Amino acid sequence: MRVTLLSAALAASLVNPAVAHDRKTRNFIYVVPDGFGPASQTLARDYLNIINGNGTAARPNSAAIGADSIVIGNVRTQSSDGLITDSAASATAFSSGHKTYNGAIGVDDDVKPLGSILEAAHMSGFKTGLIATSRITHATPGAYAAHVAFRDSENDIANHQIGFTHPLGSVVDLLLGGGRRHYLPKKEGGVRTDDVNLINWAKGKGFKYASDKSDFAEYTKGNGIVPLPFLGLFASSHMDYEMDRNPEKQPSLLEMTQVALKTLGKASSKSKNGYFIMIEASRIDHAAHANDIAAHVHDILMYNEVIAYLKKFVSQNPDTQLISAADHETGGITLIDKYNPAVLAKATQSTEYLEAKFSKYEGSDKAAFLKSTILPAYGLTNASDADVDRYMGIFKKDGVTKMGIAILHDFAESAGINWSTDYHSAVDVVLYGFAVGNALTQMKQQIGRNVNNIELPRYIEKVLGVSLDKTTQALRKNGTDWVGKNPKAAKREAMEAAANHLHGHH
Amino acid sequence: MRVTLLSAALAASLVNPAVAHDRKTRNFIYVVPDGFGPASQTLARDYLNIINGNGTAARPNSAAIGADSIVIGNVRTQSSDGLITDSAASATAFSSGHKTYNGAIGVDDDVKPLGSILEAAHMSGFKTGLIATSRITHATPGAYAAHVAFRDSENDIANHQIGFTHPLGSVVDLLLGGGRRHYLPKKEGGVRTDDVNLINWAKGKGFKYASDKSDFAEYTKGNGIVPLPFLGLFASSHMDYEMDRNPEKQPSLLEMTQVALKTLGKASSKSKNGYFIMIEASRIDHAAHANDIAAHVHDILMYNEVIAYLKKFVSQNPDTQLISAADHETGGITLIDKYNPAVLAKATQSTEYLEAKFSKYEGSDKAAFLKSTILPAYGLTNASDADVDRYMGIFKKDGVTKMGIAILHDFAESAGINWSTDYHSAVDVVLYGFAVGNALTQMKQQIGRNVNNIELPRYIEKVLGVSLDKTTQALRKNGTDWVGKNPKAAKREAMEAAANHLHGHH
Repeated sequence: MRVTLLSAALAASLVNPAVAHDRKTRNFIYVVPDGFGPASQTLARDYLNIINGNGTAARPNSAAIGADSIVIGNVRTQSSDGLITDSAASATAFSSGHKTYNGAIGVDDDVKPLGSILEAAHMSGFKTGLIATSRITHATPGAYAAHVAFRDSENDIANHQIGFTHPLGSVVDLLLGGGRRHYLPKKEGGVRTDDVNLINWAKGKGFKYASDKSDFAEYTKGNGIVPLPFLGLFASSHMDYEMDRNPEKQPSLLEMTQVALKTLGKASSKSKNGYFIMIEASRIDHAAHANDIAAHVHDILMYNEVIAYLKKFVSQNPDTQLISAADHETGGITLIDKYNPAVLAKATQSTEYLEAKFSKYEGSDKAAFLKSTILPAYGLTNASDADVDRYMGIFKKDGVTKMGIAILHDFAESAGINWSTDYHSAVDVVLYGFAVGNALTQMKQQIGRNVNNIELPRYIEKVLGVSLDKTTQALRKNGTDWVGKNPKAAKREAMEAAANHLHGHH
Repeated sequence: MRVTLLSAALAASLVNPAVAHDRKTRNFIYVVPDGFGPASQTLARDYLNIINGNGTAARPNSAAIGADSIVIGNVRTQSSDGLITDSAASATAFSSGHKTYNGAIGVDDDVKPLGSILEAAHMSGFKTGLIATSRITHATPGAYAAHVAFRDSENDIANHQIGFTHPLGSVVDLLLGGGRRHYLPKKEGGVRTDDVNLINWAKGKGFKYASDKSDFAEYTKGNGIVPLPFLGLFASSHMDYEMDRNPEKQPSLLEMTQVALKTLGKASSKSKNGYFIMIEASRIDHAAHANDIAAHVHDILMYNEVIAYLKKFVSQNPDTQLISAADHETGGITLIDKYNPAVLAKATQSTEYLEAKFSKYEGSDKAAFLKSTILPAYGLTNASDADVDRYMGIFKKDGVTKMGIAILHDFAESAGINWSTDYHSAVDVVLYGFAVGNALTQMKQQIGRNVNNIELPRYIEKVLGVSLDKTTQALRKNGTDWVGKNPKAAKREAMEAAANHLHGHH
């Protein structure tokens, strides 16, 4: 008799796909690996297998890693005004379900605010979180709780996302990332053009705050959770690349994720609603813009660790669903000819770190320092004197960044890796998703294919039973001028700025 | 009462995933778009949308096309001796479920034959078919019904696949493609080193034969089927690129597919088993080796038409399942910077066609002919005299192929498309799959993720209830020397040949 009843319920749930997960899914985790294309995952997988002794370049045997086990489709990414999207337009597509222009943060083509899935969840009583390894005011996290005509208005993004000037108040319960400078006035080490110390403002509103790993650890010791609302700003600008990160000073993306899930889960445990969180592995993209293949791979491996953790977490918490997709590819990476990822193990620091180190050197023989100290850390352990001369020539003529690019290109070429641009490319990105049982079957039925990026928040909206349209209405209730300049001017400026921005926006 | 019974059956099928499709799936269609990576589909989709008036490069609005609706995962492709596979090793992985060395056709690392899924289906009483737009003796179709130490032994591949020297006799009921030259001795226009006319041999064994579209149409007129066994060899070497194809002379890949499905379905309608067919969109790869972006896109669009047709066919024939995945990417294509696929509409012929046309020109002013006739067909409608001089310079120094590449690279660059190699790359390829109802749910459960290419035939084996291992045993029963040279020599030669082969194997 029990079997019959079970089967009838199962049959009903299959007839009406909404039944099962509308009732069961309380939490949604959305992960954005920024600037992460298909070849980048192949590379990270091959690298990890080989350095772990599973195969060699000559006799490969790559097994699946982290995210590989939850591929369910792929995503087309174009924006409303470009076959190649930027992170702002793509983040707005992911957050709001609307296509918009490159540079737009949570606003549509008419420069009017669009409700995000995070804000919609907040309005329905869910707890909410944002994690990024970039500045928390950068494009992707920005588009979930801020609405500005152009992405570079990061002070305004901070004002919105903490609730200082957001029409709905504070919509995010937990913020972890970099970007302290946009929360502080100049006299306190920030870049704000006003005198507002947003951190102090947030504390006044009840936020607890951490500025480094030890602050953070003080809160989490014991039960691994932080009090809500909580603001963690672990760097003035972006957090460090994973390969440069000092674990005493900054938490890893995985550590931030673990604390966030435990915290949000606890905080919502007695509510009928759970939480929505967006987690961004932000700097995969930055490394690709810099054409820094080793930094790119190490941030991708951290992303895969996070996904492996989250898959296990969802298995143990079947009231939770997980989706992950990049906003776009960056770098136009191809793995060709003499491709051998093992070479990457020789690199020990990012170009960001090494350019700064080289710039700070005050000794008399820059060339010798380059050869003895800098090039080996880039992975070039056998540079000839002619190579050193060439790099020094570029340094003297065009500066340290151009020298870094020349070194990085030589290094990538030695590994059979080709960078075809320092901006984004149009290739589809991979769609990852995981849930338990029937919820997974239904996720695959609904979005397991090639989807348009704007379809993903619509799926989350349905699963959580929240409303993007009502959120948009609430945002627009008292006018829309607060997002910035009037539409045409803002848009024209945004496009011009985007054009300037193309080759080096971080 | 009926509802309860239905639910119980449904519940049982979910408990034991083997139940539903082992009983219901009679036919399996496997499609290989050779040399087809993720960026190629993005490009073909954007191109098709724009030329159909759905969006522009400045205001894009690309909708899904053909294969997009059935993405279920992706595939890692490395061979046993290379992070970058060739088509032979990848085809053997797809056909047999074993990794092998680059160049191997249906043999393992020890150069011993491996049963293919087509042969296994044949041994279990299924009807079988092979379709390719390349020579039917080329690597991909070769690996389904032939076993040779190295891919260039195409005369031996013909001997095997028609049954002349195959230890199991004729295992393929229907063969359609190019490659007539490997079926005919030299004196009859072929390239065989013996005097055997394999076509006549096949006719003697009961095969019906067609050498062009009108022959083919004679058989299919009326009911759209051909008698079995059937051999259609529509070109001496490869069939034409889709953009060059004369529809009066050669059938399209879609037309061959439609006839094959109708024919195999009819022939197996009274049997308890159905059919297995492998269909290759072969020349997507050749165009990419040649860095010919227009030919590449047009063959991809034909592939998408075939997939759209097959998806509809499977919907109407729920006893059939469909999988499609490329063997590897070719060309290291990226879509960057000024990316604009609309430019490709200006090209009207492939470089294969245009190089031949230019070579045949016997007039006095080759440069004028290049400018007036050849360059516009490549899509370069505004070439300057300086460009023409440059191309003529390359022609005089390095020949017509190098000139063609220079033209093609300029054309691709004008569309924001970058070729990074003339060989393959290592990027994962997309996995497409379709079935009806519960069979689709189970397909996604079993292979809807990042799979190793060798997992795919194991899935088909289970669905059809056939045995790859028993087929391998049958092939090896009377020795294995018939696959060619002894292991080490053959392998060393194969690797050397593969190295030579790298930059221009067709």
